[in-house]
Amino acid sequence: MEVVQVLHMNGGVGETSYAKNSLLQQKVITMTKPITEEAITKLYCSKYPEEIAIADLGCSSGPNTFFLVSELLKVVDSVRQKIGQKSPEYQVFLNDLPGNDFNTIFRSLSIFQNKLRKQLGPGNGPCFFTGVPGSFYGRLFRKNSLHFVHSSYSLHWLSQVPQGLESNKRNIYMASTSPPDVLKAYYVQFQKDFSLFLKCRSEELVDGGRMVLTLIGRRSDDPSSKECCYFWELLAMALIDMLVEGLIEEEKLNSFNIPMYTPSPAEVKYEVVKEGSFNIDRLEVTEVTWNAYLDETDLSDAFKDGGYNVAKCMRAVAEPLLASYFGEEILDEVFRRYREIISDRLSKEKNEFVNVTVSLIKP
Amino acid sequence: MEVVQVLHMNGGVGETSYAKNSLLQQKVITMTKPITEEAITKLYCSKYPEEIAIADLGCSSGPNTFFLVSELLKVVDSVRQKIGQKSPEYQVFLNDLPGNDFNTIFRSLSIFQNKLRKQLGPGNGPCFFTGVPGSFYGRLFRKNSLHFVHSSYSLHWLSQVPQGLESNKRNIYMASTSPPDVLKAYYVQFQKDFSLFLKCRSEELVDGGRMVLTLIGRRSDDPSSKECCYFWELLAMALIDMLVEGLIEEEKLNSFNIPMYTPSPAEVKYEVVKEGSFNIDRLEVTEVTWNAYLDETDLSDAFKDGGYNVAKCMRAVAEPLLASYFGEEILDEVFRRYREIISDRLSKEKNEFVNVTVSLIKP
Repeated sequence: MEVVQVLHMNGGVGETSYAKNSLLQQKVITMTKPITEEAITKLYCSKYPEEIAIADLGCSSGPNTFFLVSELLKVVDSVRQKIGQKSPEYQVFLNDLPGNDFNTIFRSLSIFQNKLRKQLGPGNGPCFFTGVPGSFYGRLFRKNSLHFVHSSYSLHWLSQVPQGLESNKRNIYMASTSPPDVLKAYYVQFQKDFSLFLKCRSEELVDGGRMVLTLIGRRSDDPSSKECCYFWELLAMALIDMLVEGLIEEEKLNSFNIPMYTPSPAEVKYEVVKEGSFNIDRLEVTEVTWNAYLDETDLSDAFKDGGYNVAKCMRAVAEPLLASYFGEEILDEVFRRYREIISDRLSKEKNEFVNVTVSLIKP
Repeated sequence: MEVVQVLHMNGGVGETSYAKNSLLQQKVITMTKPITEEAITKLYCSKYPEEIAIADLGCSSGPNTFFLVSELLKVVDSVRQKIGQKSPEYQVFLNDLPGNDFNTIFRSLSIFQNKLRKQLGPGNGPCFFTGVPGSFYGRLFRKNSLHFVHSSYSLHWLSQVPQGLESNKRNIYMASTSPPDVLKAYYVQFQKDFSLFLKCRSEELVDGGRMVLTLIGRRSDDPSSKECCYFWELLAMALIDMLVEGLIEEEKLNSFNIPMYTPSPAEVKYEVVKEGSFNIDRLEVTEVTWNAYLDETDLSDAFKDGGYNVAKCMRAVAEPLLASYFGEEILDEVFRRYREIISDRLSKEKNEFVNVTVSLIKP
């Protein structure tokens, strides 16, 4: 059920791995499909290109690595059949950090390609796949070589832990008790990273090229709003419990922070406008409940325990970070406590991830 | 010392792995360097392109995966510095079969890139790496998307074991005792595969694009000549010994054949001319002794035993094939006997691999 996504961390954590929950990821791709579908259709219909180069940034490795690509190709193929156009050739670049499990992707490629060939039917053009290892906070592709860029649930990860979080003592992310300089440091890092991302992609996309990005974000103007910070606050609670019992060191906890930023739509818009390479076609917010990634085919008792599932999902994401800071030996205990805390909260309140999706065009 | 190269086998063996010996491979690349150097220099100087897309087909995974690329980039950078040109951007496609260990390549990429940056000095353009899983006996890249194709020590592998080898009883490759229909079946498969390879690459290369290919081959017109078949004949001897002792089944041995073809320069030329997409710029033959891949830094007793080293190298190549046909349990015994046979021969005669290198241009 868990799928490894890899993120490059410069904040002293080195190169490590996170997990994307594949069912959650599939739900998010499905939820944002109208936006993606509109973007790829507009791209195709503007020029009926003979080839379409698509990059999926932060593709991870698992059942959903090919899900987005197959959705995009089905859209194009349906349109080109309706209007009697010859199919373009497709080039798909699957990008993630060098630690991602590309071997598994590549070894399942032929099964996927056979399936896709049947789904699209005769006349569809060849689709060439390549793996591209590297951080998307830097150039990954040749100039003017891409037509369509997609990234889902990856861009909220920062390139590094922001500098200047010393005063964020017992928090591990932005929280209601974080001082203003902490919130600012997080925002500055987001601006720097997101702006660099836009600049790099604008060099790589052709004129008229399009990009659809989905990040975990927030609706509120307040960066420490519960809607985006709560799942880390609950993990911090588990860590503080252990600190009180002398199981982890205060200094360690004080210096531990999650390299993530969950922007508001306004913040995303502001960076796009300021950077200047792209026009915004659509900017939307969706929600997905914390429980959305439950595997509904799993009818075991564990499934019925929402706390177990949320903790399992978050463990996959946070484990590499925690392990490198606090040591492997604390992990079971942290997540046992985290699970209890979440179970308690889930019984009292509904919690959601807020997704910000932006559809951009390079004019 | 051993490096895994992966080969797609349709002859009932499934998808399996071979080994390229990295020191031998490095020696071959160095030996054919004048041809490669001339080809990339002519390519660069014909148009001073702003970008160069290079594909290495059968890149394998190991210390030499980046060796060829770094040689090519050094040549271009040296030329462009001399004439005061701005550096092109490079796109490098590393291709091998889906079973190849791309993870290891990708995880050593940043070390290689840092080293390369220092070697080339300031002003050199960015170099983007992608991994391309798939058989080169089929399209792998978009139309007109490559400038330079390289393949070393991979193209002698056929796409499948030829059909119609029933009469090749106790041989495992072409041999002096192979009936004419066996030699013909091998040649037909080579023609089909090599011709398809040329056709696919001609679609992918731009006009003026170049390709340098090195295969294990032979000088003689006789396809069962000792120069190309001997190392398999000695392995067949070890297998026959075991057959005589009842350790393997006759039927199994009779149906086992190596999916390889070691062409003469004339055969390579004939296919290129017949297929018609390429002009031949150079066609050359080199030799490399069986012992050339010895690790000269290894001064153990094993090193001094040429039989041990040759058997070790051949084991890495042949093991997956033998294991899937005869079962894992016979491997140690086969290669113990093979080593003894080779040690005996090496003490009496000098043996060489013959390399055929062809430099092609798409007019």
